[in-house]
Amino acid sequence: MVATAPPRLGFLGPAGSFAEEATIAFDPGAERVPLPSIPAVAAAVEAGDVNGGVVPIENSIEGPVTYTLDLLIHDSRLSISAERVVPIHHNLLASPGTDLSEIRVIHSHPQALAQCRRYLTERMPNAVPMAALSTSAAVEGLAAEPGSAAIGTLRAAQIYGAEVLDRAIEDSPNNETRFVLLAEGDHAPTGRDGTSLCFTFDEDGPGLLHSVLECVVAEGINMAKIESRPNKRQLGRYYFLLDLDGHRLDDRVARALRGIGERTSMLKVFGSYPRHRA
Amino acid sequence: MVATAPPRLGFLGPAGSFAEEATIAFDPGAERVPLPSIPAVAAAVEAGDVNGGVVPIENSIEGPVTYTLDLLIHDSRLSISAERVVPIHHNLLASPGTDLSEIRVIHSHPQALAQCRRYLTERMPNAVPMAALSTSAAVEGLAAEPGSAAIGTLRAAQIYGAEVLDRAIEDSPNNETRFVLLAEGDHAPTGRDGTSLCFTFDEDGPGLLHSVLECVVAEGINMAKIESRPNKRQLGRYYFLLDLDGHRLDDRVARALRGIGERTSMLKVFGSYPRHRA
Repeated sequence: MVATAPPRLGFLGPAGSFAEEATIAFDPGAERVPLPSIPAVAAAVEAGDVNGGVVPIENSIEGPVTYTLDLLIHDSRLSISAERVVPIHHNLLASPGTDLSEIRVIHSHPQALAQCRRYLTERMPNAVPMAALSTSAAVEGLAAEPGSAAIGTLRAAQIYGAEVLDRAIEDSPNNETRFVLLAEGDHAPTGRDGTSLCFTFDEDGPGLLHSVLECVVAEGINMAKIESRPNKRQLGRYYFLLDLDGHRLDDRVARALRGIGERTSMLKVFGSYPRHRA
Repeated sequence: MVATAPPRLGFLGPAGSFAEEATIAFDPGAERVPLPSIPAVAAAVEAGDVNGGVVPIENSIEGPVTYTLDLLIHDSRLSISAERVVPIHHNLLASPGTDLSEIRVIHSHPQALAQCRRYLTERMPNAVPMAALSTSAAVEGLAAEPGSAAIGTLRAAQIYGAEVLDRAIEDSPNNETRFVLLAEGDHAPTGRDGTSLCFTFDEDGPGLLHSVLECVVAEGINMAKIESRPNKRQLGRYYFLLDLDGHRLDDRVARALRGIGERTSMLKVFGSYPRHRA
């Protein structure tokens, strides 16, 4: 066995973010590098500063992460080489020794506060919600303010030495985010793969999308997902995004992709990679 | 002419929000009622407290507003009766008499701060961004803190007596949000209408969505948009959302809807309404 250095994986920071939890799920042994934005993660991979980059692509409640989709469509030659679905749990955190009854202020990102609204209203009606730039920043600030709590990840509690007063306080039980690993090149076939791609048309017309789907149907390929994104230059003109079952090197998928390429003005395959849940 | 009371329109508050700007675009003479959440807007319409409710449904940068889509799919019998596309401009606001050079802190919702990141980095590198629960809350707090600025709407500046130091400071020139008016019943045909609907299938299979699109194609109807939403009970099972050109009472659209109803396990027409941009 040859000893190799652990891979360096960039992720959408700060430290303690859900993307860091996802990075641990991708590779517990990787060196983790927090980066300030989704484009910064992609740029670090393209520059070779890191071996891969972890960004969110879809949340079950908030929907698609359009920054990541637009990066893949317009601004990056990187591929999707893996995916992980991470449950999004919000936890009530405070400085060690703080009692629930003392808490007067609860800090977090507005989205996390909103996703725990019912819990906060029912259990802590007198605590005032206060906005922070990230859940991690809220946890980091706890020590400076007695009588305050924060909503954040277990990873952030670990990093900043906070105590976990309550776990999984989110209102919706089905809150999860799909993260993808961006890299130079996608993944070899494993037999339980998915393929993500996008395409667009120069012309308008009701039959164009239908004719593309025909390529997929003709090969008996299951379509896991379809989405449209405005093309940003002209309202009402769209990029379509498909997730298909199978690897781009599988015969049936390869034939479908050739057909789609012939019927569209632009086809970009983001990559084939093992499905986290097949 | 008979004098009638102006309609009461609920909107996603607080006062000074983009939804209030949209409500003014729908009807400048309406009485405007701020409400704390998207479900609260729908509940007020259903209870008859207001005549209609204004909620965002799609932003060109952030993507679909999934709270509104999920409300229409699962939780409400209300219809879409009108739409407006509102440009999203962020403005730099401060207490009257404040000079740009004095500003040390900039308050706003994290999303607004993120959408103005380039401007803030280049023009105000020494000002510290600070999170607020809403852009309106940030503007409201200006008076209490000398040397601070906020990013907010012109409407909020008006409400809270703030001075506009700079307009339209957002990084992306194509930032706009589509708002819809939810009401009891949709809009009569005008000849330049759109129809929004959703459907799903009990079974899985590559041919099902294709066969639905065939109904649209066969009638020569243009499809303005297609999206999928996870159905929240089973991963990989989706609701599909379509926006079609034409009114549900038009012959061709009516025939297509009958065909879609026969091919799906659930079809819900959210409504037909005049397109803001045809």
